[in-house]
Amino acid sequence: MTSITKLFGSYGYNTKLDSFNDEMKFFGKMSILDWCGVAYAGKTEPVSKIVAEMVKEENGVNQARVITSGHNVSARGAALANGATGHALDYDDTHFLFVGHPTSSALPTALALGEELNSSIEELLLAYMTGVEVSTRIGHILGYSHYNAGFHQTATSGSFGSTIVASKLLGLNEDQTINALGIVSTRASGIKSQFGTMGKPYHAGMAASNGIEAAKLSKLGFISREDGIECDQGFFQTHGWDKKIPPRAIENLGDDFLFPEIKYKFHACCHGLHSFLEALDELKQENNFNPETIEEIEIETNPSWLKVCNIEEPKTGLESKFSYKLTAAMSIYGKDTSNLDTYNDEICFDENMQKMRDKVRVIPNEALSNTQSKISIKDGSSNIKNNHDLSDEIEKNVLETKIVNKSSSLLSKPKSDEISKILNSSKENKVSSLVDCLIK
Amino acid sequence: MTSITKLFGSYGYNTKLDSFNDEMKFFGKMSILDWCGVAYAGKTEPVSKIVAEMVKEENGVNQARVITSGHNVSARGAALANGATGHALDYDDTHFLFVGHPTSSALPTALALGEELNSSIEELLLAYMTGVEVSTRIGHILGYSHYNAGFHQTATSGSFGSTIVASKLLGLNEDQTINALGIVSTRASGIKSQFGTMGKPYHAGMAASNGIEAAKLSKLGFISREDGIECDQGFFQTHGWDKKIPPRAIENLGDDFLFPEIKYKFHACCHGLHSFLEALDELKQENNFNPETIEEIEIETNPSWLKVCNIEEPKTGLESKFSYKLTAAMSIYGKDTSNLDTYNDEICFDENMQKMRDKVRVIPNEALSNTQSKISIKDGSSNIKNNHDLSDEIEKNVLETKIVNKSSSLLSKPKSDEISKILNSSKENKVSSLVDCLIK
Repeated sequence: MTSITKLFGSYGYNTKLDSFNDEMKFFGKMSILDWCGVAYAGKTEPVSKIVAEMVKEENGVNQARVITSGHNVSARGAALANGATGHALDYDDTHFLFVGHPTSSALPTALALGEELNSSIEELLLAYMTGVEVSTRIGHILGYSHYNAGFHQTATSGSFGSTIVASKLLGLNEDQTINALGIVSTRASGIKSQFGTMGKPYHAGMAASNGIEAAKLSKLGFISREDGIECDQGFFQTHGWDKKIPPRAIENLGDDFLFPEIKYKFHACCHGLHSFLEALDELKQENNFNPETIEEIEIETNPSWLKVCNIEEPKTGLESKFSYKLTAAMSIYGKDTSNLDTYNDEICFDENMQKMRDKVRVIPNEALSNTQSKISIKDGSSNIKNNHDLSDEIEKNVLETKIVNKSSSLLSKPKSDEISKILNSSKENKVSSLVDCLIK
Repeated sequence: MTSITKLFGSYGYNTKLDSFNDEMKFFGKMSILDWCGVAYAGKTEPVSKIVAEMVKEENGVNQARVITSGHNVSARGAALANGATGHALDYDDTHFLFVGHPTSSALPTALALGEELNSSIEELLLAYMTGVEVSTRIGHILGYSHYNAGFHQTATSGSFGSTIVASKLLGLNEDQTINALGIVSTRASGIKSQFGTMGKPYHAGMAASNGIEAAKLSKLGFISREDGIECDQGFFQTHGWDKKIPPRAIENLGDDFLFPEIKYKFHACCHGLHSFLEALDELKQENNFNPETIEEIEIETNPSWLKVCNIEEPKTGLESKFSYKLTAAMSIYGKDTSNLDTYNDEICFDENMQKMRDKVRVIPNEALSNTQSKISIKDGSSNIKNNHDLSDEIEKNVLETKIVNKSSSLLSKPKSDEISKILNSSKENKVSSLVDCLIK
């Protein structure tokens, strides 16, 4: 089909004033004059005053900091930037029922608005947990029908969660909170065709910023619909919803929590490699492998992954993130696969790595789901086997160790410890202390 | 069905820290720590730096003014507020092919960014005209299929137009302009179920702000898709498009212009009354009616309007805006129906008005379209008739007089004249001079 984006983008770029005929110029000027009158007369309307007040409050004051630059900007601005930053590596938490990344929008909203309002960590925890439980349930209602229609829950359902986060922190009353959800039901957006571009991390920032915008407008008296999500031609109906509400999404709200089914990524490489790397990590805890004596490593995986992450002889750091053989070698040699810096060009040409890499066989196995893997290591007379399913629950103490290790590797150990300490002394600490850790 | 907005809004409002069990608190803290590590490590990613830079530039500098308050805020903020203000009265221009209000987003983008960049009126005109021609064509492609699916072109197609306006003013190159359209294809949103709430004017502000955001991000190197509008699961496919491209929407781009089919509202009342008020205005130009001697006025209209704007004895200013009978009386007595202040409580109880009101008969006529009307005035022996179709083209000099009258009535005559002068000396004048007129 015609490339519409190019057609209009190129046209837009190429117009000069003399590209327009007199008729166009006449109507252009008439429309401008007409708009000026209408807008002038509309200045005293409540909606005009409310939106003006919301953006006025953003100026000149240093509401919240951007963790990338340390700059003080508006809370909406900080949420947009920090949301994109947290999802930039696609290494943040994911939820099967949410169908996406719940924390990626809710936490940046809490950090930005929490800093503006000088909230405590306790207030942040309350707002954040409420927000992610709501966004997980709304994401579950939208489900794969929404996702397969082309929408990205991280952006869409994330906007609803962030609105709850912002509403809690701003101290909205019940009606204002419901109304804020109504406002954001027309602001939420985000399509999956942006995957593979900067548009994907942008979605987390959009959602984080949308939540603050909607809650602030609601607080200032902006009136939307109290049934904006589910009404006729509301958000659900217009966004690929299959008109089914899974019972778990609305039942036992307040008693049961869906959010704790959250999953974490522990390896800074393609998701298809995570299952076998976990199986290997478990084996390493019980065995002292000697790389020299290992004769062969067999990895069984769902065949669909072979097209995604089975580069046999990677030559760049990026390629190493998509290689069963090399990441297996890295793991055997004790390299930290949770650390982004581990995946570099040099490691691809390390002699030991290459030798180990070539001892690995990758075997497609249709019987395995795409979260399952089997591994078998032949070392002399012993043949040590393990299997792993990413869907299985991990014991809490094991999980905590893994997350602390990951965060220490990404943040440094002292900084990771400081964040844990701040989270565990939530009454005494302010949100700004958490943002401090992320900036310095 | 379950009221989802209320369910989650109320839940969000009601949670306290002790509403959460230990498991939820554990996973909440784990997710925060995990996000902190991932976000910290993501700070050096290009997308993080770009979005941070965009919001950094918004702070502390006085980029653009909000016309409602006169406050200096970010260009994105001013566009959001001024967009909502210009559409607050729903009295701005409309386009049948665009299916909505093209100027309501494109002009606020041009005013806000033009002020930030100290652009000339000539630059504003170029950017604005290019933007509205593009948004009209994209709105036409989306068509009634998109509209009937529940989306509001003013918000969605408006975002594409505003992106072109912003791209022109920022001086983006061709690839950057195409890329900016790709970015906004995941940011554009707006659903029709917000009609009747402040959400409708908000749509114009959202679109105006989205355009600035997308174009600024593109200028800073943010990479999206160059086929974001039409690609598989791109904006079109995910937003109710019927997969048809009307030839006029893409043909003769640059030679023919669709925008000049724009329509204006000339009466500050319900759209259903406009056709007969136009017919009456035409009669008044050729006849000197004496209210005392008029015996009867017959108005024929499409039956659908009778449920919308046929209040027989209005008692408030708001009700007067929905009354064939009273607005006919107001027009006969020479009241300015383009002026918002004309529609007040007092006029409903004016003796002359009430007497004339009761001489009006409203007759449904299935043969008339909803843009057509017939009027007949019985005055002694003469029976003076006229009919009007809002779809008919109006002669340019007649149209200009009408718009100047409307703007003079809304802005004051000197201010309206000043705006006309500014638009006609476009090289010498800056965008800020136009914003001055709207603030003072």
